[in-house]
Amino acid sequence: MIDLFIIKVGGNVIDNPVLLQAFLEKFATIPGKKILIHGGGKIATRIGDQLGIESKYVDGRRITDAATIDVVTMVYGGLVNKQLVAKLQAAQCNAIGLTGADANIIPATKRPVKEIDYGFVGDVKPEMVQTAALKALLEAGITPVFAPLTHDGKGQILNTNADTIAASLAIALSASYQVRLIYCFEKKGVLRDPQDDNAVINLINKEIYQQLLDEKVLTDGILPKLQNAFSAIDNGVKEVLIGHADDVLSNTTDKVAGTLIC
Amino acid sequence: MIDLFIIKVGGNVIDNPVLLQAFLEKFATIPGKKILIHGGGKIATRIGDQLGIESKYVDGRRITDAATIDVVTMVYGGLVNKQLVAKLQAAQCNAIGLTGADANIIPATKRPVKEIDYGFVGDVKPEMVQTAALKALLEAGITPVFAPLTHDGKGQILNTNADTIAASLAIALSASYQVRLIYCFEKKGVLRDPQDDNAVINLINKEIYQQLLDEKVLTDGILPKLQNAFSAIDNGVKEVLIGHADDVLSNTTDKVAGTLIC
Repeated sequence: MIDLFIIKVGGNVIDNPVLLQAFLEKFATIPGKKILIHGGGKIATRIGDQLGIESKYVDGRRITDAATIDVVTMVYGGLVNKQLVAKLQAAQCNAIGLTGADANIIPATKRPVKEIDYGFVGDVKPEMVQTAALKALLEAGITPVFAPLTHDGKGQILNTNADTIAASLAIALSASYQVRLIYCFEKKGVLRDPQDDNAVINLINKEIYQQLLDEKVLTDGILPKLQNAFSAIDNGVKEVLIGHADDVLSNTTDKVAGTLIC
Repeated sequence: MIDLFIIKVGGNVIDNPVLLQAFLEKFATIPGKKILIHGGGKIATRIGDQLGIESKYVDGRRITDAATIDVVTMVYGGLVNKQLVAKLQAAQCNAIGLTGADANIIPATKRPVKEIDYGFVGDVKPEMVQTAALKALLEAGITPVFAPLTHDGKGQILNTNADTIAASLAIALSASYQVRLIYCFEKKGVLRDPQDDNAVINLINKEIYQQLLDEKVLTDGILPKLQNAFSAIDNGVKEVLIGHADDVLSNTTDKVAGTLIC
């Protein structure tokens, strides 16, 4: 019996006020314990541009320099996070907005410089998550809402991938709860035919996963999500659900839209 | 016996990295339960300017329009608040960064439009403060750090005076704790002679306050602070301490620098 929902919502929803409002209203109605992790969205890039801070990329990967970490701290940790909290409060969900620095919940390691210096980027491991404060909040009926930020324990905020934060929290909390980890993205789920948005594969276990790999059905976009999902399952998470924000919150545990991985 | 310290630090410290670091190191060493409330500082004005958002004033009072509330939500609730949290974590203080929207701790009323429309400004009353989550955090050894932001319960973040937030939290929590409320400002305390920075009056009770009023010793700058202080005392706060950030955290409860109001 699932007793904790951990939901990651991406920039495509954050950037769209209509989608976002619908999403938050559905999220607020999920009964029981839940955690939201949000991505950044394009607003950080827009505000960075307005402040004259150039987005830097190496091999297509964004570099978080000193100016950029300030922008994402402002935008993800302040503007986006606190607006989500205020909107959830209006929807009768007692949300609390956090970064990984708050109550030291998600200590991270600044990514070591090898071929590329990613700058102020934090890598997280599930075993580093400090669950005591998080569990106290959940038990008090409070819903944590995380911005994709962590810290190094030495005073520095770090930019961290929201998918990774979601998986790390899910794994760490699976010692105390039966966790369903939900990734909302722009598709309805894992598709048997990438050209057909309705060809959703409803259930993937390891056997089916191997078949799909053999048939080369899976696209480059979905492969890392499935790898992360199975890594979460292997580390104690009960279920992972991947699908569109419109669908995956409509069900609680009985009927399932999207792709359920278990 | 004081068992909760509530400390407000203003923009003059926030804006100065050297003063700020010294302040945070002292703050981190205060034993037991404590809460920090920070003002905004000039960085919001600077970032607003860079974003082309004009600061608007009516009769010398700042107006918080829609663009400005977004800037202060970013800067106060994100950049300043989360940097303070990361630095306090580095100083072994288990801080959690909050606004009044988080866990619905400080619901506020948007200031009614009369002669002036102040925009997205929230007025707070001590009886509106929701202390349950706050007490749970304090009891868990976590130190709340508040940005000067509240919310209207209908999804809107509101700009709120940090001194007022500090006093409201102090009064609300005085039902559960023996509270010392500390206002850090640029002077060493209430001065008998405004020209002499060392002429600090160490203790003011109601009798001395009346004498000082009769002697017209008090300047316009200090009067509202004293009125707020006595209002806090009248509503259950044990002590109010006013002084310089360098001094007022050096003592815990025995020796007192600055001006103690009781």
